[in-house]
Amino acid sequence: MNSVPQTTLTQMLAARYGAAAAGADDLNDTLATLLGHRSVRTYTDAPVPDGTLELLVAAAQSASSSSNLQAWSVVAVTDPARKLRLAHLVGDQKHVEDCPLFLVWIADLARLRSLGLRRGMPHASLDHLEMFLVATIDAALAAQNAAVAAESLDLGVVYIGGIRDRPEEVAAELNLPPNTFGVFGMCIGYPDALRPASVKPRLPQAAVLFREQYDATTLETATDSYNAVMAQFYQTQGMKPKGEWDQHSLQRVRGPEAMKGRDRLVEVLNRMGFALK
Amino acid sequence: MNSVPQTTLTQMLAARYGAAAAGADDLNDTLATLLGHRSVRTYTDAPVPDGTLELLVAAAQSASSSSNLQAWSVVAVTDPARKLRLAHLVGDQKHVEDCPLFLVWIADLARLRSLGLRRGMPHASLDHLEMFLVATIDAALAAQNAAVAAESLDLGVVYIGGIRDRPEEVAAELNLPPNTFGVFGMCIGYPDALRPASVKPRLPQAAVLFREQYDATTLETATDSYNAVMAQFYQTQGMKPKGEWDQHSLQRVRGPEAMKGRDRLVEVLNRMGFALK
Repeated sequence: MNSVPQTTLTQMLAARYGAAAAGADDLNDTLATLLGHRSVRTYTDAPVPDGTLELLVAAAQSASSSSNLQAWSVVAVTDPARKLRLAHLVGDQKHVEDCPLFLVWIADLARLRSLGLRRGMPHASLDHLEMFLVATIDAALAAQNAAVAAESLDLGVVYIGGIRDRPEEVAAELNLPPNTFGVFGMCIGYPDALRPASVKPRLPQAAVLFREQYDATTLETATDSYNAVMAQFYQTQGMKPKGEWDQHSLQRVRGPEAMKGRDRLVEVLNRMGFALK
Repeated sequence: MNSVPQTTLTQMLAARYGAAAAGADDLNDTLATLLGHRSVRTYTDAPVPDGTLELLVAAAQSASSSSNLQAWSVVAVTDPARKLRLAHLVGDQKHVEDCPLFLVWIADLARLRSLGLRRGMPHASLDHLEMFLVATIDAALAAQNAAVAAESLDLGVVYIGGIRDRPEEVAAELNLPPNTFGVFGMCIGYPDALRPASVKPRLPQAAVLFREQYDATTLETATDSYNAVMAQFYQTQGMKPKGEWDQHSLQRVRGPEAMKGRDRLVEVLNRMGFALK
């Protein structure tokens, strides 16, 4: 059922941090699934079996939801023509076309607005940034549960942030009503064993985990260490990124010209019915 | 290792939707953990064992991250005096005081800003709503992995959205730098078996899962059905909510007066260094 190699926890942590890591060997199947995640962008031709989508959504709905408002939805796309159009809208990402199942995760305030209109009850909070955040976080928690569930069933996944490049065209394609927004996409399919994906190392815990209070002084040492780990990772992958990890990360956030239209997100969201007060 | 009752998938889905649900019985441990989630607010006195926090954070770091920017951090609080102060800041939630481990999940653009200053490289995208969303989503995916990991180790968790009630006071308590924001908290501890939490039913899948395109016509029937399921759930729990599920959900979003300060989130975030352009 679960194809994560039954290696030891110590080995899995070493892959995740690119360095030897101590750890008691109390690995269970769930931890193995979580720690073994890698983004999968190439798939076999096998479809996602009947019933699996419903199971992934049950896992998604089992995630926490702020005040049980359940302010999210998901659109499942399998139609090849629609996947092709969506692949184009997210910046010509071939894996969106290739995957047998493409999910678009929706921050959904339309449902509460409709219910408010039906009951004749006020719902002015929906016009605030806070409720847009609630919907976005609800969608993210749900999606991550679905991703973990998929991986536990030997499927591979990759998140597609490019769904935010052209939100209004995505909305038109998916018939999304006002007050809904595609937060990200997710490709799902069985990994092509001929082109296996690798576990990507992450920052040392010293950079992200703090005790009692935030401590910015760990950043420089942790970054230098991580740059070295990532340089080695890129080499083993045959990748040649421009500069070290922090340099090409900074290229990614250098300014509006690098944001593929997402620099106008506030204006776009306003048009889509989110006042973001 | 994993104390989720080894029941059948059909039984777990029935609990999640408050109704009989068909489903192949291919339940694995990871699915059992995901589907068995319930929010836990009462804990035994047992501390979270040494090494477990690091394991939860390794699981968190294994979640997908937009462009591998890893724009999140987490502050782990165990000091009783600090937990007491935080419990007050989130609206006097006793479980924040009671839990042995309280995590505050941080949308963190300070790290990229610091790295930009160190490299002398521009980083103007950080001033856009899009990058605030990236950081928030990164934090949410990471947190959900940690929650699932915790539950696989027999711990119970509950998310604390109240961390957004008074963001600047939370930032002062945790020494958070500008360009960081506590997205939500998370209580972690061993569940008190004397006060077990129940699996909460969710909306029928017809209301949240759509094929190819969004379909708003399912909402009324699904809501009426869910209102009935929840009425029965409240009764079994001895709870007496004001009205049906949609009615008290709408009470929650009725307007700024019900938002506990979160109606001013834009202004607060601006002061905390997020321009949200």
